[in-house]
Amino acid sequence: MKQNIIAFVVLLMVAGSLSLAQTSQTVPIDDFKPSTLNQPGNEYPQVNSQGYVRFRIEAPQAQSVTVTLGLRGKNGTKLTKADDGSWIGTTESPMDEGFHYYHLTIDGGTFNDPGALNFYGSVRWESGIEIPAHDQDFYAMKDVPHGNVQQILFPSKSTGTSRRAFVYTPPAYYKDLSKRYPVLYLQHGWGEDETAWSNQGHANLIMDNLIAEGKINPFIIVMTYGMTNEVKFGKIKEFDITPFQTVLVDELIPYVDASFRTLGDQAHRAMAGLSMGGMETHMITLNKPEVFSYWALLSGGIYKPEEISDKSKVKLIFTSCGSRENPDIVKKSVEELKAAGFKAVSYVSENTAHEFLTWRRSLRELAPLLFK
Amino acid sequence: MKQNIIAFVVLLMVAGSLSLAQTSQTVPIDDFKPSTLNQPGNEYPQVNSQGYVRFRIEAPQAQSVTVTLGLRGKNGTKLTKADDGSWIGTTESPMDEGFHYYHLTIDGGTFNDPGALNFYGSVRWESGIEIPAHDQDFYAMKDVPHGNVQQILFPSKSTGTSRRAFVYTPPAYYKDLSKRYPVLYLQHGWGEDETAWSNQGHANLIMDNLIAEGKINPFIIVMTYGMTNEVKFGKIKEFDITPFQTVLVDELIPYVDASFRTLGDQAHRAMAGLSMGGMETHMITLNKPEVFSYWALLSGGIYKPEEISDKSKVKLIFTSCGSRENPDIVKKSVEELKAAGFKAVSYVSENTAHEFLTWRRSLRELAPLLFK
Repeated sequence: MKQNIIAFVVLLMVAGSLSLAQTSQTVPIDDFKPSTLNQPGNEYPQVNSQGYVRFRIEAPQAQSVTVTLGLRGKNGTKLTKADDGSWIGTTESPMDEGFHYYHLTIDGGTFNDPGALNFYGSVRWESGIEIPAHDQDFYAMKDVPHGNVQQILFPSKSTGTSRRAFVYTPPAYYKDLSKRYPVLYLQHGWGEDETAWSNQGHANLIMDNLIAEGKINPFIIVMTYGMTNEVKFGKIKEFDITPFQTVLVDELIPYVDASFRTLGDQAHRAMAGLSMGGMETHMITLNKPEVFSYWALLSGGIYKPEEISDKSKVKLIFTSCGSRENPDIVKKSVEELKAAGFKAVSYVSENTAHEFLTWRRSLRELAPLLFK
Repeated sequence: MKQNIIAFVVLLMVAGSLSLAQTSQTVPIDDFKPSTLNQPGNEYPQVNSQGYVRFRIEAPQAQSVTVTLGLRGKNGTKLTKADDGSWIGTTESPMDEGFHYYHLTIDGGTFNDPGALNFYGSVRWESGIEIPAHDQDFYAMKDVPHGNVQQILFPSKSTGTSRRAFVYTPPAYYKDLSKRYPVLYLQHGWGEDETAWSNQGHANLIMDNLIAEGKINPFIIVMTYGMTNEVKFGKIKEFDITPFQTVLVDELIPYVDASFRTLGDQAHRAMAGLSMGGMETHMITLNKPEVFSYWALLSGGIYKPEEISDKSKVKLIFTSCGSRENPDIVKKSVEELKAAGFKAVSYVSENTAHEFLTWRRSLRELAPLLFK
């Protein structure tokens, strides 16, 4: 167990240092367009066809405005004051494709870009930007039947509250009222919450598109808060899985099975998580192999064959990360699992780091393997 | 029609000028607590038992920080720099109970308070604060069965997109799969969107609590974007209802009736809206009396008996506003409707203005009158 946590932390640290695209000295092409994640009607931030990002912030009396996105020093992009009193700047190099969190530092304080939508990450609502990916079609909103994402409030005796989860039901869920579905429990990472997989991850659109193309057997996805953010970053070893395991296994799963038309047995239940949600998935699946039969870690560590007590319980182990993380660890672990007789699959997302495009692609790769 | 729009605009203007509690010269009691709408772990903003709000913003090199909430001049609350480099200030007087939008002006730029959660209003994601109301119990999250709020993406040929709506289903919806429900179409105001009634309004919790107390016949609520924000504030007369009416009546209603277990006839369909959503409700119900039988305007104008062509189509007209708006207009119009033979009910929310506590209370009063 401890070994895996260390592997996870290593993945995370490597990821942190590589989470930006490599420096490029090309001149940005002047084809900047508003980011697709801007607030309605806002022209900035903008992204060009190479992945450069341009910011424009109005704060005429400010002394300094910097953005955490970019490479300049280690402080991101420093904006400069324009003639009209606004602050303008462009990242020194293109950003990796996909979604990135960022925020502003204005006169020493942390604020969001008023032009961009907000996404929960780093234990705060951060600004978000989207660099169009060459393969963005798989998570685009298309003219296909759409499933629903619904907020449920489930009673939790162990924490004395009603807790929130989001449940994706496939498009046909409301058509044939006799059909029952398998369920994937899908966890966010440290600093995020139960909104991440829908808002940043577009999990619902990825599913809608895969279903429309006939690539997967439709299933339900349940996303709840992993209680990860009470632990300080860097003190991950102190994380106690017990409270969340109780909420998930003893409270949420029975509620979902009673409220939705699920196939409520181990054979039809999967768990996956990204980053620290992968660490949780790892711990809970090993602790409760009688509950989940498909196990998936997305940039969230690896399984060692010797940790798994009963091989017959595991239908699939899926392990993924970005190519800018530590793909060799992921691939090697999957080879070891295969050699030990497990059905194991690895996936490496090209040219991405410890960020959401890695995890969107991982879900696209994982979904067709589940419940077959 | 024009007359009603003018009445609506009058309501709105009166509301704007009275939207703050009256000036009080008492000294704030030192029992400030973090607002319930703060981001996780944030100590500020804080609210005391009298409704004063205290802000603390970190921006050590800033020249000026003001908050739009409060009375000072017409620019809200001016913060002053404390010894630790943070900016601190307290509203000059208590705020009205309930929910308020606000934002910061830092060195001439508009930003959100990083301590507070964000809510879509004024055509941007604004900071939000909650002054605990003496009657807050009716929208509190309690240990009762909870309904779900689900995002649907419905096809819209008229706008060439998949459009988003949120659907509240009552707690028993997933228990008895043969039962069908009436539907309330519930609209947000200008500057807001389809997230407002759940996030700011707590419509789902109000319903859960009313159902748990046996006070209402459970029904479904559908909330979508009213396309109101393309019209500039102050140019409301130029608003064309046709595009939204098409989306609502020809696209959303058929989709909801096909996707949920609704009672899909006029007798079991209501429409209500707040502020500009009331103006939309007014226009659409008069244009399409064969679609809706219960009509409700929340701080959103009034009906005149002579505008309604077929009295037999209308089961109920509900008109409400805050006591700090223009309750006399609301009451008088309801008396006129009654004299003309309509079933009409007025409601005035005490000590509130053109804000969400008025509308939470209005929904609480309206819900028991529907579908009886």
